[in-house]
Amino acid sequence: MSKAKSILVEHGIEIPFHNRMDFCVGTGRMGLALHKEYYEQLKLVQNVIGFKHIRGHGLFCDDMAICQSYEDECGKQVFEYNFTYVDRVMDSYISLGLRPFLELGFMPEKMASGNQTVFYWKGNVTPPKNYNDWTAMVQALLHHLIERYGKEDVLQWPIEVWNEPNLKSFWKDGDMQEYFKLYEYTALAVKEVNPAFKIGGPAVCGGTDKIWIRSFLEYVRERKLPLDFITRHHYATFLPEKSGHYEYTKLHDLKESFKLLETTREIVDSFDEFCGMDIHITEFNTSYVPNCPLHDTNLNAAYTAAMLSLLGDKHASYSYWTFGDVFEEKGVPFTTFHGGFGMVANGCIPKPTFWTFAFYKQLQGTCIHRSEEAIIVQLPDGNYRGILWNMDVNYTDEPLELEIKLPSKHADYCLISKTVDEECCNPLKLWHDMGEPANLSTEQIALLKEHAVPLIKLESMVSTELEIDISFKLKPNAVIYFELKKVERKSDRGYSYERILKGEK
Amino acid sequence: MSKAKSILVEHGIEIPFHNRMDFCVGTGRMGLALHKEYYEQLKLVQNVIGFKHIRGHGLFCDDMAICQSYEDECGKQVFEYNFTYVDRVMDSYISLGLRPFLELGFMPEKMASGNQTVFYWKGNVTPPKNYNDWTAMVQALLHHLIERYGKEDVLQWPIEVWNEPNLKSFWKDGDMQEYFKLYEYTALAVKEVNPAFKIGGPAVCGGTDKIWIRSFLEYVRERKLPLDFITRHHYATFLPEKSGHYEYTKLHDLKESFKLLETTREIVDSFDEFCGMDIHITEFNTSYVPNCPLHDTNLNAAYTAAMLSLLGDKHASYSYWTFGDVFEEKGVPFTTFHGGFGMVANGCIPKPTFWTFAFYKQLQGTCIHRSEEAIIVQLPDGNYRGILWNMDVNYTDEPLELEIKLPSKHADYCLISKTVDEECCNPLKLWHDMGEPANLSTEQIALLKEHAVPLIKLESMVSTELEIDISFKLKPNAVIYFELKKVERKSDRGYSYERILKGEK
Amino acid sequence: MSKAKSILVEHGIEIPFHNRMDFCVGTGRMGLALHKEYYEQLKLVQNVIGFKHIRGHGLFCDDMAICQSYEDECGKQVFEYNFTYVDRVMDSYISLGLRPFLELGFMPEKMASGNQTVFYWKGNVTPPKNYNDWTAMVQALLHHLIERYGKEDVLQWPIEVWNEPNLKSFWKDGDMQEYFKLYEYTALAVKEVNPAFKIGGPAVCGGTDKIWIRSFLEYVRERKLPLDFITRHHYATFLPEKSGHYEYTKLHDLKESFKLLETTREIVDSFDEFCGMDIHITEFNTSYVPNCPLHDTNLNAAYTAAMLSLLGDKHASYSYWTFGDVFEEKGVPFTTFHGGFGMVANGCIPKPTFWTFAFYKQLQGTCIHRSEEAIIVQLPDGNYRGILWNMDVNYTDEPLELEIKLPSKHADYCLISKTVDEECCNPLKLWHDMGEPANLSTEQIALLKEHAVPLIKLESMVSTELEIDISFKLKPNAVIYFELKKVERKSDRGYSYERILKGEK
Amino acid sequence: MSKAKSILVEHGIEIPFHNRMDFCVGTGRMGLALHKEYYEQLKLVQNVIGFKHIRGHGLFCDDMAICQSYEDECGKQVFEYNFTYVDRVMDSYISLGLRPFLELGFMPEKMASGNQTVFYWKGNVTPPKNYNDWTAMVQALLHHLIERYGKEDVLQWPIEVWNEPNLKSFWKDGDMQEYFKLYEYTALAVKEVNPAFKIGGPAVCGGTDKIWIRSFLEYVRERKLPLDFITRHHYATFLPEKSGHYEYTKLHDLKESFKLLETTREIVDSFDEFCGMDIHITEFNTSYVPNCPLHDTNLNAAYTAAMLSLLGDKHASYSYWTFGDVFEEKGVPFTTFHGGFGMVANGCIPKPTFWTFAFYKQLQGTCIHRSEEAIIVQLPDGNYRGILWNMDVNYTDEPLELEIKLPSKHADYCLISKTVDEECCNPLKLWHDMGEPANLSTEQIALLKEHAVPLIKLESMVSTELEIDISFKLKPNAVIYFELKKVERKSDRGYSYERILKGEK
Repeated sequence: MSKAKSILVEHGIEIPFHNRMDFCVGTGRMGLALHKEYYEQLKLVQNVIGFKHIRGHGLFCDDMAICQSYEDECGKQVFEYNFTYVDRVMDSYISLGLRPFLELGFMPEKMASGNQTVFYWKGNVTPPKNYNDWTAMVQALLHHLIERYGKEDVLQWPIEVWNEPNLKSFWKDGDMQEYFKLYEYTALAVKEVNPAFKIGGPAVCGGTDKIWIRSFLEYVRERKLPLDFITRHHYATFLPEKSGHYEYTKLHDLKESFKLLETTREIVDSFDEFCGMDIHITEFNTSYVPNCPLHDTNLNAAYTAAMLSLLGDKHASYSYWTFGDVFEEKGVPFTTFHGGFGMVANGCIPKPTFWTFAFYKQLQGTCIHRSEEAIIVQLPDGNYRGILWNMDVNYTDEPLELEIKLPSKHADYCLISKTVDEECCNPLKLWHDMGEPANLSTEQIALLKEHAVPLIKLESMVSTELEIDISFKLKPNAVIYFELKKVERKSDRGYSYERILKGEK
Repeated sequence: MSKAKSILVEHGIEIPFHNRMDFCVGTGRMGLALHKEYYEQLKLVQNVIGFKHIRGHGLFCDDMAICQSYEDECGKQVFEYNFTYVDRVMDSYISLGLRPFLELGFMPEKMASGNQTVFYWKGNVTPPKNYNDWTAMVQALLHHLIERYGKEDVLQWPIEVWNEPNLKSFWKDGDMQEYFKLYEYTALAVKEVNPAFKIGGPAVCGGTDKIWIRSFLEYVRERKLPLDFITRHHYATFLPEKSGHYEYTKLHDLKESFKLLETTREIVDSFDEFCGMDIHITEFNTSYVPNCPLHDTNLNAAYTAAMLSLLGDKHASYSYWTFGDVFEEKGVPFTTFHGGFGMVANGCIPKPTFWTFAFYKQLQGTCIHRSEEAIIVQLPDGNYRGILWNMDVNYTDEPLELEIKLPSKHADYCLISKTVDEECCNPLKLWHDMGEPANLSTEQIALLKEHAVPLIKLESMVSTELEIDISFKLKPNAVIYFELKKVERKSDRGYSYERILKGEK
Repeated sequence: MSKAKSILVEHGIEIPFHNRMDFCVGTGRMGLALHKEYYEQLKLVQNVIGFKHIRGHGLFCDDMAICQSYEDECGKQVFEYNFTYVDRVMDSYISLGLRPFLELGFMPEKMASGNQTVFYWKGNVTPPKNYNDWTAMVQALLHHLIERYGKEDVLQWPIEVWNEPNLKSFWKDGDMQEYFKLYEYTALAVKEVNPAFKIGGPAVCGGTDKIWIRSFLEYVRERKLPLDFITRHHYATFLPEKSGHYEYTKLHDLKESFKLLETTREIVDSFDEFCGMDIHITEFNTSYVPNCPLHDTNLNAAYTAAMLSLLGDKHASYSYWTFGDVFEEKGVPFTTFHGGFGMVANGCIPKPTFWTFAFYKQLQGTCIHRSEEAIIVQLPDGNYRGILWNMDVNYTDEPLELEIKLPSKHADYCLISKTVDEECCNPLKLWHDMGEPANLSTEQIALLKEHAVPLIKLESMVSTELEIDISFKLKPNAVIYFELKKVERKSDRGYSYERILKGEK
Repeated sequence: MSKAKSILVEHGIEIPFHNRMDFCVGTGRMGLALHKEYYEQLKLVQNVIGFKHIRGHGLFCDDMAICQSYEDECGKQVFEYNFTYVDRVMDSYISLGLRPFLELGFMPEKMASGNQTVFYWKGNVTPPKNYNDWTAMVQALLHHLIERYGKEDVLQWPIEVWNEPNLKSFWKDGDMQEYFKLYEYTALAVKEVNPAFKIGGPAVCGGTDKIWIRSFLEYVRERKLPLDFITRHHYATFLPEKSGHYEYTKLHDLKESFKLLETTREIVDSFDEFCGMDIHITEFNTSYVPNCPLHDTNLNAAYTAAMLSLLGDKHASYSYWTFGDVFEEKGVPFTTFHGGFGMVANGCIPKPTFWTFAFYKQLQGTCIHRSEEAIIVQLPDGNYRGILWNMDVNYTDEPLELEIKLPSKHADYCLISKTVDEECCNPLKLWHDMGEPANLSTEQIALLKEHAVPLIKLESMVSTELEIDISFKLKPNAVIYFELKKVERKSDRGYSYERILKGEK
């Protein structure tokens, strides 16, 4: 069985569409940014896609070594700061054209009021023993960054206070009032360093977000605290089921899932003071666990294509969690394809979702069509670009035939298409067919990389007086990028492609 | 319509097959080896395929600047030799793992007896004014090479005297006796430098080869001259027809074409003294003109696959003419795809034939099947590798279905296939669809490179108790490489690929 | 014996100084730009120095293959143009951040009225048979460049008509009137393509320049021809003496030499219409032969340092002839160090003069001192940079001691110096000590590169209330670059450099 | 004041000397081998020096994530092993031409009997709760390595049990009997995997080594345990004094220091069963703390030069602790130059000691001189290589003049010297003069790298009938490498270096 749809774009049409997919991307904890494998995956991502900011946890965790102390002559503990690793990480980001979206957290052990930790890597999630020590450290860091990287640059780095404090696992007791206190101390301290810094919160995940965001805004309003943007997260799967090292789950219906996002916008806009304020989705993905095989599939790529067509409507940015699979929240992965969050698998193998982002990066211009399976833009030069997908959330396994009519005057065209589907670009399947080797050999990596690329096709086309017709057949979970470019055809003296095709002497 | 064949390989079978495709490759004139584009194409070829020797014309042409002279105090012309460019070229070859197959020619102007030249780049093809000056130069060069690169290395470089002297355009009047004189002087001079050098000739093209080779061997026998191997060329197309900058032609029937090759072997073996002597085909290709669009096609790749399955039977080597499209014999090409000899088009774009060579490079092991559309080997570890092709010389446009049964005991396999056909890897078509741009932009080159790669697929397979069955469908002019590898399948604790496929939570 | 000088810079001083050393650099003929060695040398030059334009001969010579022709059905010769190599060269330049300074010449053989050639590489120097064919070719080239590289970019590429037509060897009979005709046809044709192109001439060498420039300007004025700038060349040595492959010579006194340059400025300014018009020195160097060992010496570096301190005073640019030693005007060099024009020797070895340019590239800011041995600038941040030299034209072998007092308030400084002299950075001597090997081994190249770098030293300094004193001792022909930077000294807790020096436990 | 010495080498002399400096090098804990900065430092070390093995702590520490566990259905803890990071580290080593010298330790938390830890990075130093769990893990690792890297390779990797168990900080209570138990269990388990593995211990530091080694050997003898080599460490400084983040100390007298090493040899040789057995110094350096500024000095380079001339006499290898400054035992360093163990400072800046190793790597051939300031070898081709040093342990600041006479027949020579001293190659001083910046900018790193290289000089020399005389002046703590190579001097036609020097026209 097969689905079929027609898309007819009329001349002069224009559809609101904000492509902000490259504003920010997520990462495993800061300390992992020292890794070579991390760097290489990020370099691939930046070379092909190119994000502006990067956001991750663990800036103040002990492996980053910022917070140090010694006893002075009187036996008093004196804090001092070590920026060796911070600088190494920031240098590395900047060398790749990236800037941080600073998430302030978690708590250095020396400053922590308790010893509750989160994750395999044990981030301390308790409030500071002394809030002034905390703000002194935050300020020292910001002063240091400004000194090293320049005010002009550093003031553009957004700052977010903590991560998902509405969850008990991320913030002791999920204590809302304590978080507000943290926000207050921190925001005031940041603005004291320089009022031009942009700061926001409360970085909540879905679920309890309604209460938290309303209460947070009320608190901020009441205390006249600085606030430049609101942040929240977005995931789109049901509760997963565990089996061994892995967790399996199903995707939400996309529309249902987006309704949950609208509440935040509504709450924010209900405040006169905050109406229209930027909302950054500082994390999003399909599943929220880093051992969910779904992340490695073509379905994930197709679902993400659909999400990216919509997320810019109400959000200043949306940061895919995460760029790569160097990640340790549930421990070090046992195998290459383990359902990690990343667009890139270990070994620098792009997953299908990587290409969804690479394709969206090309979507500049005026949007002229957006539907549940396609988005098309027109460039100032009249050429077209589009992304098509055949998301198969319900495992129906049906291909999709798309007929597209676009306005054009009589002209010669070249139709470029890049296809990522379960047949032509499915590294997960290849790896499975190889026997699911835990760690890959050089040859296996090479083969996977050769395979994990879009299938490129070109076609010569001619438009009629009014329109040009193109058509595509999308396999289940296919994502296709196309460009329709006017070309001037001219053959060199004596050259005949037709003669070659026919083998005429 | 579609053709279908079955291949049944029985246990224990062994077929004589000599895979010598990587012994030597051809190149445009030596002076072009100084070019950056040349180097990059050759680097690509060496990285992916890896030849041992390289042979081209023009070593002694004036752009290589070897032969210089000045007047001494008495006004006498004194020859001196400049090895600056020779060294630069040899250094470059060696850095890429290559050694020359030295072709001695053409004539430096200062030594030439006439001014007849060949090619756009004007190689002088007349005998030396003074044979002693010629041999002095040859000896000086060999001494210099030994000093710079070491005896052990240089003595392994085969030496061939001149190129296609049976053609008037390559050797004044096609004068056979004069060539024999050249050979005699040169061979003796070379052996004087070191008797361990291997020297051969007469480097003739097809057509008049019978008379030439017989006469040459008689001359050598009579004069007791050194001779280590015989050389000739092989092309497989009819007389081309010209149109503007291009020449169009048709391929010979492969079997007919190979008959022409057998005569040389027979003639050589008819001499007691030379029976069994190595014959090197120092040039081969489909068409013998560098502006024949056929070279850029998938048909060329399929035809070459067929040739490579056979050429080793009677020849010590066969050197594809040429590795790349930096070439000027008929002038500088006007466009990127211009029907050049190369496996690689300008811009470092691999043509389909490039992959035929890349695939053959993998064919180590024992040959267990060879037919008109397939060759299969078995490795010592029991795994299989094969190359399949569907050569469509008559433009019938029929696909080919191949069923292959290979001996095996019950085992898990992974079937890797790499397909190059007119749909998935056809850079010529892409370039045509782009509008046949003369010189490519960076973006166009990138797109062509992304496309001009084999399509990689993998499949999990299980053999029966006795055999394993695999099947392929080859589009017209497809060339497919496959590997059938035993794998040990083991999944990590909790990992289920089936569960992912079904989307079970 | 030793010379000593004091330099006292008072507060607030400002000296006119135009550092235009990076506007343009010279190159061997265009066809050589296809070479790999050429590219690597140019890449080194661009990485370390960074020029904006590049100018060389031979754009229309036959190895660039632009001018082609065929016979049409009526047997008439039709010209057609091949831009394959032009594009390859321009792509390469642009990839290195360079743009051409287009020199239009020499004559394609198919268009030439005679067969007089210049150089080992045989550039045809006769007028066109038909001036309209010539201008058609020039226009076709410009149209093509605009199409490929964009109007915005290409219109910034200066255009010069021919090279040194005042010499019989470069222009048949040195025929002035014929050159004016060439200029007239060419300039009008160029402006027809786009009036925004900047065009100039007459590209004369010294000697007969007075008559030529005056007559040229009169001609241009009379015929109301377009003219955007005047060009001439400048060399600074006496007639060389030949010995074998080499030519030896002595340097002019620098001041005398500069007087010869002033005449051009005076002549130009004597015309109301051209007063103040830009003069580009489209070639300069010490000696004007490419086999003059002087070019490889530290003396050449010191003399060039002196020239660069002055050339900007009256000239819009001055283009060092040439960036590298891939050059064939007198034939292919027999050895690595052969007195070539280049800043870089074959093998990518920087010569001393390379560093003179690298140092001048750093001289941004306000000039506060210029003398016969030094030039010093102050940056907006108050730091200083300077270049010092001890040019030993008369081979007196005396060192030079320089005391420099610069204005400053009490501050901590770091004095960075980079020294290039006959002891620490003299690759010519190393090569000589190696035994003057013609072509270098990889190991020899590595050793030469390790040596051919400036000696780096740093020093901690403190200024008094009013000034800071620094001093240098320059060996003969030394060139020293220094930076005097304010630093904030702060040691980490417990760190004591003094303690380390004394070895205190 | 200045010291002067003469070295006279007579013909035919031969001195026993074993240059085993490249057998092994030390590293910070295994987990750091995932870092990019670590990789780049190691790559520099391998490119220039090239070690065969690498040894460091922390293979089984939790950041390597090998030891994992889960509860089975019955609630029983089941151990499982994760080799993701091990493989990544080993792949990285192998890509750099290195193999591990496996040190088995410390204790994974899940297996540990206590919670005592060592270092900032908290390596657990308690015995296993269950020795069988420990040996199962060791065996699983070895089986895995063999499977991945091949038996042939992995069996060449030496295995050492634990690190410095004679210190309470490294092994709970410094309990000797418990260590013997650990050794026994481990050695037997290793040999069970494959008897060809080479295993050793007891990896003790100096001080208590006498008792430990004797008792260890007695235990091994009595229990007939496998033992392939003995290991110990060697440091050469007095107890350091602390100040802030740093520790200052003085060097032992070299001879005294070496006496301490002899005891081990004597003890081992006193056992019939072990007499002559290989002793590996699995760690050596000057100071044993990673925050001792001495490590960054030229004195350290000179002292190491002296040590390397002697260490091979009685030891199968001696592993410099460590190759680079990515190291965390006392925490993350606050500044670039912090007295780390490494040959390379963070930012990939080679320290003086780096060059000592680079120089020793060239010392192949027959030793013909060894003294307190020099070691000289002769190569089979008759050329000489040597290393000279002027170790200034007592801070006398005296230069050293060395006159060296070497046997030779009349021949032309080229004397190459590479000097590392406090003036020409002293990055510590440069960094100090820069103001001791904690973390370096790209420009500062570039400047330090330009400086931190040996000064290269060449000289032409001629020997007399019998000998050749060379002389050197060594600044305090200078280390000089020289090569004295025969050269054949020949100048190209017309080339005269003397004429250039004199500036003759």
